[in-house]
Amino acid sequence: MELLQETLKRIRPVESNHNEAFKRWDNLAIPKGSLGRLEELAKKVVSITNNQRPELKKKVIFTMAGDHGVADLGVSAFPKEVTSQMLCNFAKGGAAINILARHIGAKVVVVDMGVAEDIKLHPDIKNKKIGYGTADFSKGPAMSKEEAVLSIERGIESFEEEYKKGIDIVGTGDMGIGNTTPSSAITAVIAKKAVRVVTGRGTGINDLELEKKIDVIGKGIMVNLPDPSDGIDVLSKVGGYEIGGIAGVIIAACARRVPIVVDGFISTAAALIASKLKDEVRGYLFAGHSSVEVGHKTALRKLKLLPIVDLNLRLGEGTGAALAMGIIEASCKVLNEVLTFKEAGVSKSKK
Amino acid sequence: MELLQETLKRIRPVESNHNEAFKRWDNLAIPKGSLGRLEELAKKVVSITNNQRPELKKKVIFTMAGDHGVADLGVSAFPKEVTSQMLCNFAKGGAAINILARHIGAKVVVVDMGVAEDIKLHPDIKNKKIGYGTADFSKGPAMSKEEAVLSIERGIESFEEEYKKGIDIVGTGDMGIGNTTPSSAITAVIAKKAVRVVTGRGTGINDLELEKKIDVIGKGIMVNLPDPSDGIDVLSKVGGYEIGGIAGVIIAACARRVPIVVDGFISTAAALIASKLKDEVRGYLFAGHSSVEVGHKTALRKLKLLPIVDLNLRLGEGTGAALAMGIIEASCKVLNEVLTFKEAGVSKSKK
Repeated sequence: MELLQETLKRIRPVESNHNEAFKRWDNLAIPKGSLGRLEELAKKVVSITNNQRPELKKKVIFTMAGDHGVADLGVSAFPKEVTSQMLCNFAKGGAAINILARHIGAKVVVVDMGVAEDIKLHPDIKNKKIGYGTADFSKGPAMSKEEAVLSIERGIESFEEEYKKGIDIVGTGDMGIGNTTPSSAITAVIAKKAVRVVTGRGTGINDLELEKKIDVIGKGIMVNLPDPSDGIDVLSKVGGYEIGGIAGVIIAACARRVPIVVDGFISTAAALIASKLKDEVRGYLFAGHSSVEVGHKTALRKLKLLPIVDLNLRLGEGTGAALAMGIIEASCKVLNEVLTFKEAGVSKSKK
Repeated sequence: MELLQETLKRIRPVESNHNEAFKRWDNLAIPKGSLGRLEELAKKVVSITNNQRPELKKKVIFTMAGDHGVADLGVSAFPKEVTSQMLCNFAKGGAAINILARHIGAKVVVVDMGVAEDIKLHPDIKNKKIGYGTADFSKGPAMSKEEAVLSIERGIESFEEEYKKGIDIVGTGDMGIGNTTPSSAITAVIAKKAVRVVTGRGTGINDLELEKKIDVIGKGIMVNLPDPSDGIDVLSKVGGYEIGGIAGVIIAACARRVPIVVDGFISTAAALIASKLKDEVRGYLFAGHSSVEVGHKTALRKLKLLPIVDLNLRLGEGTGAALAMGIIEASCKVLNEVLTFKEAGVSKSKK
C-alpha cells in the first residue's frame, strides 16, 4: 500500500503553459492549424513532460498478462491455455505486438501478472505473478483487496525497473483470455452504464455466448456490489491481475511525467481504475485507437479521450498503442525539426 | 500523347485471388478479423503487387508543385511567392513532409511542374516545368490540352526515373498556393456537385474570401464547360500543372503495379482525373487521410476510398500520405512476420 500511496502523491496536474514550444509551433512554416491533431499531440507531450523540445526516442510497450476465473464459464472464443501460449509467442518475437513495436522502434516488456500456468524463465518476460488466474467473479470477488493493491504495485515496479534504462513514452497492452469480461464489468460500474451497452464479442463469440457473458457480468456486479468511486474496490471485485498491472504502469508513468498511450478496451478499463485513484491521471493519457469492442467508446468518453487512429482493431497486446505511438513521435519531430517561417525564409499569410 | 496512351494501356485490373497470402493471414495466431483494417490493407497490397509476401522497403513520396493564375484573385490566404519559397524549404529538408517522410523512412522527390518563378538547380528537385503558373481559369482554360497531356506525361517520366532506383510504394503530395481552387472545380465537375458543397477555406480564408472563391470556381466552370467524362478536358480547363503531374505519377504507378497512397484534397482531385482516363486506376489507390478541406470527402466517396487516418490535417505536401504509408507498411510486416497458430504453438478458437 505504501508504494502505491507514495506514487500517487507524486502525480502533479499536467500544466499547459509552455510558451516557448507553443510559440515555436505557431511560427512553423505551415498555415495555422493545418497539422490538426499533430499539433494537439505535440503540445500535450510538451505539457506532460515539461520539456519544450521533447524527443520520444525510448519507447516501451508493457504487455501485461493474466488469467481469469470467468474464462471457465464460456465467455471467450478461445481456451484459457492460450494466455500462456501467447506469452511464449511474445518471447519468440512472433506476435503482432512484437512486429508493430519493432516497426515503430519500441521495446516490448511482457509481464506475467497472474497467468494460470508457470511461465518458463525468459529475459524478456518479467515474473510479477500474484496468482494463477483470478477467481470467478460471478460468485465473489475476483481477488482480495491486498492482491488488488499488490497488482498495481507490481505494475509500478515493472515500470520503475524499465524507467532506470530510460523511457520517453510508454504504451500499455494486455493478454488474457476472457479479459474483455472484467473490462466490461469495470466500465459498467465506473461509467454507470447498463452491462449490455458495454459488453461485446471479444475475440469472437456468438449471440448465445454473448448473452451468457452479459449474464455473468451482471451477476458479478450484483454479487459484489463494487463501489464506483473506489478504484481498488472495483479492481478487486470484478477486475484482473493484468488490469491492475496496467493501472500500475499508468500511475508510475504519471508520477515520472512520462506520456502514456493507452491501447484498447482492457487498457482503457485499467485507465478508468487509475483515474479513480487520482483524477489527475487523465491528463497524461493518449487514447491509442478506437476498438471495435463496444464498451471502449463508453470508457473513452468517461476519460474524455479522443482516439488517435481508428482501424477496427480488437486484438489488444498493445497493437493500437504501438501504431499511435509512431504518430505521436512524428508530431514531436514536427515541433522540433520543421523550420519556422523565419528560418525557412517563407512569407507569412497576408493577414 | 503516345507515352500517356501507352502507359494507360499497361494498366491491368487489380485481382484479389491471392490464396497463399490470404490463407497465411487467416492462420496468423490472432483472433479472426481482430486486426481490422490492417488485414484489408495488407491484402490490398498483395493484390496490387501480385506478390504474396510484399515488403514495402523503398518508399517514395512525390511532392509536385505548380502555381495558379486564380491565386491572383485573392482565393488564398498566402501570397503566390510562397510556392517557390516552399520548394527551397523542401530542398533544405525543413518542411513537414521532409520530417514525416524521414520518420517513416521514405524519400521525398520534389517536382517543379509549373512554379511561377525559376527554381535554383537542386539535386532533390526535378525540373519538369511546363509553364510559369497556369492561366486564370475564370476567364478561359487554365492550360491548353497539349499542356494537360504533357503535365501527365512529365508525371509519368518523374515516376519512371525514380522507379529505376526501386519503388515498393509511392505517395503523392502537392505544393501550390491557390490549388484547392482547381481541386474544388475538378471535384464539382467530376462528382457533379454544387461548387459551394465542395469548396473550403484552404490555408485559412475568411467568409468573404470564401464567397469570392466559390464565385471564381463557378465562373471557371461556366466559362469553360469541362466535360466530366474527359479527364484531359477537365484538367486543361480547370486544373493545374501539379495536379496533372500527380495524375501522371498515379497512372505510371498503376502500370508498374505499385500501390499508391493518395494524400489529401489536391491529390484526390488528381486521382479523379486519373480515374477518368482509366477506371481500373481506383483499385491501386489508398486514401492516406481524411482532410479538413470540405470537398475531400466528396472526392473520396466518388473514388470509393476509405481514408486510413483522420487527424484533421489540411497541409498537403504529402504529409497525410506519409503517416498512412507507415501504417500500410506495418500491415505487410504483420502478414510476413507474425507467426501462424501452428508456427507459434497456440491453440485455435474453440469453433
